[in-house]
Amino acid sequence: NKKVYLTSVRSLATVKEIFQNKSEFPTRHIGPRKTDVVSMLDLLGFKTLDELTDKVLPQDIKFNRDLDIDLPLNEHELINRIRAVAKKNEIWRSYIGMGYHNCYVPHPILRNIFENPGWTTQYTPYQPEIAQGRLESLLNYQTLVTEMTGLDVANASLLDEGTAAAEAMSLCYRHNKRKKIYLSQNLHPQTLSVVETRLKALDVEVIIGPISEANFTNHEYSGMLLQYPDTYGNVVDFESIAAEAKKNGTLVCVATDLLALTLLRPPAEFGADIAVGTSQRLGVPLGYGGPHAGFFACKQNFVRLIPGRMVGVTRDQDGHDAYRLALQTREQHIRRDKATSNICTAQALLANMSAMFAIYHGPEGLKEIASNIHNGAITLSYGIKRAGHQQLNEHFFDTIHVIPNGLTIDEIKERAERKKINLRYLDDGSVTIALDETVKTEDLDDLLWIFKADTLSEILKDPNALFENITYTQFKRTSSFLTHPIFSKFHSESRMVRYMKQLENKDISLVHSMIPLGSCTMKLNSTTEMIPCSFRHFTEIHPFAPVEQAKGYHQMFDELEKDLCEITGYDKISFQPNSGAQGEYAGLRAIRGYHEANGQHQRNVCLIPVSAHGTNPASAQMAGMRVEPIRVKASDGTIDLAHLKEKAEEFSETLSCLMITYPSTNGIFEAGVAEVCDLIHKHGGQVYLDGANMNAQVGLCRPGDYGSDVSHLNLHKTFCIPHGGGGPGCGPIGVKKHLAPFLPSHPVVDVFQESEVNKSFGTISAAPYGSSMILPISWAYIKLMGGRGLRRATQVAILNANYMSKKLEGHYKTLYRDPSSNLAAHEFILDIREFKKTANIEAVDIAKRLMDYGFHAPTMSWPVAGTLMIEPTESEDKEELDRFCEAMMTIREEIRDIEEGRMDKKINPLKMSPHTQFQVVNTEWNRPYTREQAAFPAPFVRPETKVWPTVARIDDAYGDKHLVCTCPPILPDLYT
Amino acid sequence: NKKVYLTSVRSLATVKEIFQNKSEFPTRHIGPRKTDVVSMLDLLGFKTLDELTDKVLPQDIKFNRDLDIDLPLNEHELINRIRAVAKKNEIWRSYIGMGYHNCYVPHPILRNIFENPGWTTQYTPYQPEIAQGRLESLLNYQTLVTEMTGLDVANASLLDEGTAAAEAMSLCYRHNKRKKIYLSQNLHPQTLSVVETRLKALDVEVIIGPISEANFTNHEYSGMLLQYPDTYGNVVDFESIAAEAKKNGTLVCVATDLLALTLLRPPAEFGADIAVGTSQRLGVPLGYGGPHAGFFACKQNFVRLIPGRMVGVTRDQDGHDAYRLALQTREQHIRRDKATSNICTAQALLANMSAMFAIYHGPEGLKEIASNIHNGAITLSYGIKRAGHQQLNEHFFDTIHVIPNGLTIDEIKERAERKKINLRYLDDGSVTIALDETVKTEDLDDLLWIFKADTLSEILKDPNALFENITYTQFKRTSSFLTHPIFSKFHSESRMVRYMKQLENKDISLVHSMIPLGSCTMKLNSTTEMIPCSFRHFTEIHPFAPVEQAKGYHQMFDELEKDLCEITGYDKISFQPNSGAQGEYAGLRAIRGYHEANGQHQRNVCLIPVSAHGTNPASAQMAGMRVEPIRVKASDGTIDLAHLKEKAEEFSETLSCLMITYPSTNGIFEAGVAEVCDLIHKHGGQVYLDGANMNAQVGLCRPGDYGSDVSHLNLHKTFCIPHGGGGPGCGPIGVKKHLAPFLPSHPVVDVFQESEVNKSFGTISAAPYGSSMILPISWAYIKLMGGRGLRRATQVAILNANYMSKKLEGHYKTLYRDPSSNLAAHEFILDIREFKKTANIEAVDIAKRLMDYGFHAPTMSWPVAGTLMIEPTESEDKEELDRFCEAMMTIREEIRDIEEGRMDKKINPLKMSPHTQFQVVNTEWNRPYTREQAAFPAPFVRPETKVWPTVARIDDAYGDKHLVCTCPPILPDLYT
Ligand SMILES: Cc1ncc(COP(=O)(O)O)c(C=O)c1O
Ligand SMILES: Cc1ncc(COP(=O)(O)O)c(C=O)c1O
Ligand SMILES: O=C([O-])O
Repeated sequence: NKKVYLTSVRSLATVKEIFQNKSEFPTRHIGPRKTDVVSMLDLLGFKTLDELTDKVLPQDIKFNRDLDIDLPLNEHELINRIRAVAKKNEIWRSYIGMGYHNCYVPHPILRNIFENPGWTTQYTPYQPEIAQGRLESLLNYQTLVTEMTGLDVANASLLDEGTAAAEAMSLCYRHNKRKKIYLSQNLHPQTLSVVETRLKALDVEVIIGPISEANFTNHEYSGMLLQYPDTYGNVVDFESIAAEAKKNGTLVCVATDLLALTLLRPPAEFGADIAVGTSQRLGVPLGYGGPHAGFFACKQNFVRLIPGRMVGVTRDQDGHDAYRLALQTREQHIRRDKATSNICTAQALLANMSAMFAIYHGPEGLKEIASNIHNGAITLSYGIKRAGHQQLNEHFFDTIHVIPNGLTIDEIKERAERKKINLRYLDDGSVTIALDETVKTEDLDDLLWIFKADTLSEILKDPNALFENITYTQFKRTSSFLTHPIFSKFHSESRMVRYMKQLENKDISLVHSMIPLGSCTMKLNSTTEMIPCSFRHFTEIHPFAPVEQAKGYHQMFDELEKDLCEITGYDKISFQPNSGAQGEYAGLRAIRGYHEANGQHQRNVCLIPVSAHGTNPASAQMAGMRVEPIRVKASDGTIDLAHLKEKAEEFSETLSCLMITYPSTNGIFEAGVAEVCDLIHKHGGQVYLDGANMNAQVGLCRPGDYGSDVSHLNLHKTFCIPHGGGGPGCGPIGVKKHLAPFLPSHPVVDVFQESEVNKSFGTISAAPYGSSMILPISWAYIKLMGGRGLRRATQVAILNANYMSKKLEGHYKTLYRDPSSNLAAHEFILDIREFKKTANIEAVDIAKRLMDYGFHAPTMSWPVAGTLMIEPTESEDKEELDRFCEAMMTIREEIRDIEEGRMDKKINPLKMSPHTQFQVVNTEWNRPYTREQAAFPAPFVRPETKVWPTVARIDDAYGDKHLVCTCPPILPDLYT
Repeated sequence: NKKVYLTSVRSLATVKEIFQNKSEFPTRHIGPRKTDVVSMLDLLGFKTLDELTDKVLPQDIKFNRDLDIDLPLNEHELINRIRAVAKKNEIWRSYIGMGYHNCYVPHPILRNIFENPGWTTQYTPYQPEIAQGRLESLLNYQTLVTEMTGLDVANASLLDEGTAAAEAMSLCYRHNKRKKIYLSQNLHPQTLSVVETRLKALDVEVIIGPISEANFTNHEYSGMLLQYPDTYGNVVDFESIAAEAKKNGTLVCVATDLLALTLLRPPAEFGADIAVGTSQRLGVPLGYGGPHAGFFACKQNFVRLIPGRMVGVTRDQDGHDAYRLALQTREQHIRRDKATSNICTAQALLANMSAMFAIYHGPEGLKEIASNIHNGAITLSYGIKRAGHQQLNEHFFDTIHVIPNGLTIDEIKERAERKKINLRYLDDGSVTIALDETVKTEDLDDLLWIFKADTLSEILKDPNALFENITYTQFKRTSSFLTHPIFSKFHSESRMVRYMKQLENKDISLVHSMIPLGSCTMKLNSTTEMIPCSFRHFTEIHPFAPVEQAKGYHQMFDELEKDLCEITGYDKISFQPNSGAQGEYAGLRAIRGYHEANGQHQRNVCLIPVSAHGTNPASAQMAGMRVEPIRVKASDGTIDLAHLKEKAEEFSETLSCLMITYPSTNGIFEAGVAEVCDLIHKHGGQVYLDGANMNAQVGLCRPGDYGSDVSHLNLHKTFCIPHGGGGPGCGPIGVKKHLAPFLPSHPVVDVFQESEVNKSFGTISAAPYGSSMILPISWAYIKLMGGRGLRRATQVAILNANYMSKKLEGHYKTLYRDPSSNLAAHEFILDIREFKKTANIEAVDIAKRLMDYGFHAPTMSWPVAGTLMIEPTESEDKEELDRFCEAMMTIREEIRDIEEGRMDKKINPLKMSPHTQFQVVNTEWNRPYTREQAAFPAPFVRPETKVWPTVARIDDAYGDKHLVCTCPPILPDLYT
């Protein structure tokens, strides 16, 4: 099925040429035109891309054949192909529940956020001055979570409910160091598995049992985790058990459901210290399990222990209110091996969708949705009971639990299947039915029919049918919620769309200019890749639906796995990890499992170069390993091989693995990586290769070939999933054959094929295949590029980085290049440190000043403090690279003005940057430079295309001192 | 199928209440919340909406029951419903051609323009300072058209190829007054029909015949119209005939194909004076016939005769380059009854899509697409001939013309149907096959199979297979095209998306703020309404496909017709007119047909109040009527009834009709409209009621009830089709039963049902059902609102207008209110004229100053010079209305400052408005007001949400003097 096209007649040489396959997508994805590539290569002294990359890569790791990947499809064929694959999924009505509920995504949110590159292509808001839009939205999310749970603070999302629960229990352990936790047996099975997997690695004993049997009196439990409503739908009064726990110093964590809490007393009111869950059902599709946002809320006294990112309110230089990520000193890249959580990429986009869902419906609207669902559940319960069945839940919100009478479970299943309805069938022969926002009267009638009960209208003739209402009980919520005006102002579609647009337009995303964040690979996220994510046959599938209904998904997984294996040289992929850091953790756990299976329980040392990304040591720590840092040579940034050797020998008996990033986080292809891998293997260790920099390797070399045993692949970097303003991500891991049995498993869905051996260490995500719904993006990217296109993309990524490094030579120092080739890989580090002495200018000043030029800053002070790391990616064209270089050179001249005394050391365009409209359109102006220099510092910065920072430089210290992490009482009125 | 929902439990009163149907869309569409409505009514002294509108409407026209329309669907049900309807259309491969070709809409353009409210919801760029984005894009379109045709100037689109051809022939007639035109018989049949219909009304004799028989020597022909390539695909050398025509003073018009012109010599090079056609195949879906852009290009000497809108380059107050609509003095609202064309709403959005298609592909890319198509056609021709058939076209681009041999036409048809392929079957037993961009080798093989020819790969073994290439002939294009850098800079998707975003962000659209354009009804265009327009089963249907393949479309037409008839009180609808003005024309022609059928050929006088929209007299003029103006009372703006009576009597014998707008263009429900209709009927005339103001009537009164015989409905006003920056529109007409036989017909598709009598006057659009693809928008709006929702929308539209008029009382004078109720209808006019005397301030100054406040101006100086007409619509909420009123009141204070001498008469914030970044971020500032007053004149104008005009006030006079209507040689480099 390789399609052949009729092509230009210009060279009639051979018929074959006329009818050759012409997919032009690679020329859309890759920025520089062919002629530009020639002139850029010329600057570097090369004739061809092959010549360049031949020089950049060490000889011994090169991949010397074409990737065996299908010929590229064009963009329209691609859509036809993926549509056909998607249609192999069958959309049944799923009342399985278990944390996943069908819902209506409001169309304005779908189109203006989920399908809008202005909202999907930003990075995490580390540069708050040009990120006030999504920061405000994430703050709305935090407010939503705190108000519904009744707790004091919340973060800006975690990966899912399972990991949020695991983070909660780790927090308990960290808080009071007790070595046991108690989990209610009525938690969702995947929550139990994820928590158990994660806590066991910390040597915490996990007790699972009925709540009634929990005994806190001997002060062994750091925390307990309850579910409200529980996995069977039961709503239990936890007040006394919570009091009991609290009395004995055990923290009370509650997994809960934000929608149910519109009707039910919130966890804080019966004693919860922490609440977790998923906000999927608030406007995010099922998507076969992900992505969606996990939430985490807690009491104020734990605020500094909260995992992940949290938005806070601070002020800017001019004293105006401003948002930013709060408490960043807690972030893992600072804590490193003292890290307690490895969460980095989270679920910003999905959190924003849920926040907008709440804004769109408002408190009354949410309550009405919940009431509708509840009324359905009550009626269903009543009808089913009247038909002679037993319904076990005394109190419930949306889920009932039935022991059938007079019908066998097989009969029920058969009747349900006839109606294309999925229920949850429990091993004890009972059934649960979880209703959701989309349930219509016809659906209720079908459910009643399955149980041979009366029809709805028959039942409703009975005035008692609606009597079981939970709001007539002690569970009724009496406290108000979402009273902040933001949740009541935007209920007409006109206003809602304007609000989303206003926030969008405050932020720099890829629709404005390049985002040259080193290590983040902000490449094109093409429209064609994104389109399938909205297909019904992908969005409307429950993760625990029978696999026969998910054939399309599985075909897509299989094809993507095959391609990723070919690209990496690995043998098997697990799609379960929802982020790079999750992938690291999963990979390390697989290594640990492997050693243990070989009887090598003692192998727990993980060697990590000090230049590694903070998630590496954090993940190792969490996997129960002992981190041993490996020095890096200050001269060239490469691993100190002597030190590595020394450590490998020192820990030869206990060596678990080496974790390295390749090409290194310093942006060079270190020679000798193959020998390093050999060395580790000789000492009985495994090699974990951090795949964050795969964008420098695809088609040129394969980790699986040169000695690595396992890697994660940040699909949100190399494989085109957009960053979404801080997630979603995807961090599948690839492993060599010997590690395959040790990949993640799942308690509900068997992710191992029948023929495979399952020696899994456990479960790391709530969903069996992680963020399935966005995998079509990476699948599509590979199918659109083909093997040669992928290779060319890598080569141009390397070309672009070296071109910029070369152009900036003489203006800035590139910190490290490969000593032999004098070339960088796909990114490079500019050393800014000297300017501190000469002009009192630091990396942050340049980062902020770049905003005045319309650019997002490069990665700041990582991996080396006082530097900027630039990664252009292949998607930026020469003109854009030149524009960025021109900005950097002009800034260099601005620094020179300070160095040479022509400009004040304190009040200068760099120190005062970024410049806002408020400042430059102000009668007062008494700076030693002009307004024009402030705001329009280069010819290409023009009023008609200017992107303005909406606040001046953020005051982080003030924010940390005055922590406010929900919508401030009087929100700056952004749209009167 | 009325769905019932479980709803809130708050009032358990009755089971019925619990399960009542709750569609919340009306609350999304209508801006003010219930509590706001109460307080707004209160200000006006009413208790309920019914009380208000009872007072506003004359007693004798009220509609006293609920609309009989289905109960409203919720937004998700709606999508399911329309998807099911759409799927009744069958997608066959259509090689019918005839001006409609399948094509690939580039996904980035689809998503970022067609599906993006930032591009779909602007109005026509009459306020250039906040419309530079789409003006630039339309200029790109004009450049595309001029470069491809080789002519000097082009306009910014017409409605389709048929009307463009009719405009061309009218221009010829206008130009040299000769009373005959010659049309090649090889034009598309719909082009022939539209031209014939239009020109006959002007008493021009239309000769249709072979080109060879055209004889120009006796100087009878004003113009001739040729097609290149012609409707059968033949490419004929027109050089000598054109020379012959020219020698004899006959203008040469050529209908052509922009894509073919990448390979073929452009019309200008063989003597064309005018070229017309459609740009549909450049990136706009088939959509069962529309919408898409018609183009019109001509030599420089006809520039002042060009119909429609044309973008030109001028400069702003600061001397910067700027775009604006050029030569507006030519516009119909100035010319009125001297008008030569009634074109108003055009096809801006579709022209923009085609312009972006050209930018995305560039000259080389377009040529490659054309070459691929051509190669396919050559090979197909070769194969079919080798199989023994006759192929009639000696030279061709994409279409071949076959006389089958050894296969009957029925056999061919049967074989084609087996492959689900549509061909064009001609009456003489021949067949044409038109290839397009989407044709793949499999498609060619299927086509060859139909003719029992060899397979493609078999054919390609023959080296002569590709020999018939037209670029080996005298037809080869040798001149270059699209050499302007704009067509070569944005070929990577990153750059393309950024370009589209940059243009989007220059323009005010409904995603920013209310657009209170009186008579334009800029209401919400909701996402749910827009979604179905992208459905494949709507986009990929050829307008001339057999009706059995378009069952979904016809169901939708039927349902929409039924609802529109119920809303208007008419009996029958024709969807053919593509705009309001086209509807007027069609309606007047129907009236004329009716009179003629009654033997009343002499009835040709059309009475039109002087306050009418300019399209009214223009349409009457074009319909061959004599326009008699009716006076309007200066005191209250109502029709001078005495004058009307007088005229009706005077022309009793020759009265054709009255054209009135209701409520009047002055925004009042005139009493006595029913009597007026009576009066006209008594004199044997018909009543044409301009439906532009239906938004004040839906659910409250029905034109068909109170005496009107025919109306157009601007679906792009009342029925939610977005304005697209100046189109697409839809102007279906509703008629009473007696006019039904006189509705438009179509030469290719029989639009009359079997049972109906067809006495049609002719054809007015190229496509049988006009802009079918966007009709789902209006269909959806009605289904989402239901009868009560629609009525409430009308009531709130009236409330909003009266609320604003009331709030502005004491600041501005509302020119006209109903004398008895002292209320306006859904819009109102502010009289600005006094300020000319007191402060030298004119309507235009306020309009421009409003931009500084972030608002689009109201309608300026229409229908009364020196006024502003405000129409808020029901979709704007109280907060937005208040914000606009606050802007107006602040401006009134600014005027007072001038009046009272506190501010300079020449240099003041109004005269100098709008203010640009260039001005206020400038070291130079020597104005008697501050920068802050200039750019942030009210508390709600805030830097973080400010929408900046990108140019200062436009210098129209300069532009008219120095007319430049293509991309200027050195384009202001907007993105270096
Ligand atoms: C080198 C490296 N490793 C790991 C990660 C963590 O990946 P994620 O953010 O997907 O968890 C990153 C993220 O930027 C990275 O740059
Ligand atoms: C009163 C009135 N009639 C007719 C028209 C013409 O409609 P269209 O622009 O769709 O041709 C308009 C357009 O604004 C109008 O306001
Ligand atoms: O923290 C980072 O995402 O690199």
